Amino acid sequence: MTIVGELINTSRPAVKEAANNRDKDLIIDLAVRQAKAGATYIDVNCGNMINNEDEIMEWLVKTVQSAVEIPLCIDSPSASALDIGLSLCKYGRPMINSISDEEERYDAVAPLIGKYDAKIVVLCMDSTGMPVTSDDRMKVVHKLHEKLTQEGVKEDDMYFDPLVKPISSVTTAGVEVLETIKKTKMEYPNVHFMCGLSNISYGLPNRAILNRLFVVQTMTLGMDGYVLDPTNDKTMADIITAKALLGMDNYCGGYIKAHRKGLLG
Amino acid sequence: MTIVGELINTSRPAVKEAANNRDKDLIIDLAVRQAKAGATYIDVNCGNMINNEDEIMEWLVKTVQSAVEIPLCIDSPSASALDIGLSLCKYGRPMINSISDEEERYDAVAPLIGKYDAKIVVLCMDSTGMPVTSDDRMKVVHKLHEKLTQEGVKEDDMYFDPLVKPISSVTTAGVEVLETIKKTKMEYPNVHFMCGLSNISYGLPNRAILNRLFVVQTMTLGMDGYVLDPTNDKTMADIITAKALLGMDNYCGGYIKAHRKGLLG
Repeated sequence: MTIVGELINTSRPAVKEAANNRDKDLIIDLAVRQAKAGATYIDVNCGNMINNEDEIMEWLVKTVQSAVEIPLCIDSPSASALDIGLSLCKYGRPMINSISDEEERYDAVAPLIGKYDAKIVVLCMDSTGMPVTSDDRMKVVHKLHEKLTQEGVKEDDMYFDPLVKPISSVTTAGVEVLETIKKTKMEYPNVHFMCGLSNISYGLPNRAILNRLFVVQTMTLGMDGYVLDPTNDKTMADIITAKALLGMDNYCGGYIKAHRKGLLG
Repeated sequence: MTIVGELINTSRPAVKEAANNRDKDLIIDLAVRQAKAGATYIDVNCGNMINNEDEIMEWLVKTVQSAVEIPLCIDSPSASALDIGLSLCKYGRPMINSISDEEERYDAVAPLIGKYDAKIVVLCMDSTGMPVTSDDRMKVVHKLHEKLTQEGVKEDDMYFDPLVKPISSVTTAGVEVLETIKKTKMEYPNVHFMCGLSNISYGLPNRAILNRLFVVQTMTLGMDGYVLDPTNDKTMADIITAKALLGMDNYCGGYIKAHRKGLLG
């Protein structure tokens, strides 16, 4: 299971303020707490700092790596910020978030994968816009799987993101994601998945329960990577429990250990 | 979704005592609370009253039906107790819990299905003992689907129970159940499912979280019936939430209504 800790993102006001003031303490605290909570990657995203994103990316990546020695997921709409972030990654192989089949995006990001021997999050989106059905998504999966394979990217380094959309606007939005996971898994058993979840509950009350159960549902169909807040104990308890139920935890050893640490609530 | 309320079972000491004392109040309270909480059937089980099961079954069925007008699930190892319970059912079509492919059990229960136009819970078990893998279970599913079809039972009246066993003793016990649901659903899209869940967590701490998430996982693969405690708000909140995520709740109307009633915690 790949857990990308999402907290170092300047769309969060406290992180933006820390970035503007070059306040290392807050960033280091977020990095350490996420790593300790079980993050396998730390996401670094300052995509909303439009005037000085490159500079902030450099500072964030250096600051995070002064505190934790785990790989980073460099997350930006800007190829230049991705390039700078990736060039500074010191621990393990970095992840790029993300490529899509929108022409300009594809052409800007594809060269970075080989340049930095990076893993790549692959959005199920092309220039025709946001997908609705799982068939829409599978068209992009087929296309990008083919194109990335031609670039020399291994299946084991591809992390498909089915693009989660709100069930409040389209009742079947969750099902289409589940179907996409099932179909992708059937056709390409060796690729991985990655997604953010909170969109699923947009516009609805009690969002936390929807987000958490959608983790359990997607895991049941083979989803193996999430961008989430690993310091949320309830989410992590659900993931540990779901792994035990899915036969991914020998003799429930991880589950029992989590229970002894008081992590299951 | 079919919810069979499990609380009227003389294996629970308070229910046994009420049955022995013919204390209607406790039984009526359990029936009313389960119906109000969303049970679509009320299970009636006094299988451990070995000296007077027939008599207690009669009293329980009459008592429950004096209070609620919903169908019953008559649950017993004894064909005679099943017969008496079924003969008294007044509201809707009853459910029999259960038939298996053990020869004696099959021969005793099969005639009752037609006699009472009942729905039938079909255990994935035969005389070779408890199944281990999903293939073991599918052998029984095939056999019983064929035999019951020959008896004239419609697919819509068959509720397959994949037999849930503890993940604490076999790490893959949950996965085998999930695989059985997937395969059964693929081969016979019109049959239904029914299962009790609490076995999954036997021998482990924090059993409630395992039981609840296993509901969500099995629902994701198409399980559509459970024997459970419908007065457990957390379980019901998870089922309501999972339905919304699975596209079974138009515009999330049921979810929003549950939220307004304060049912989502």
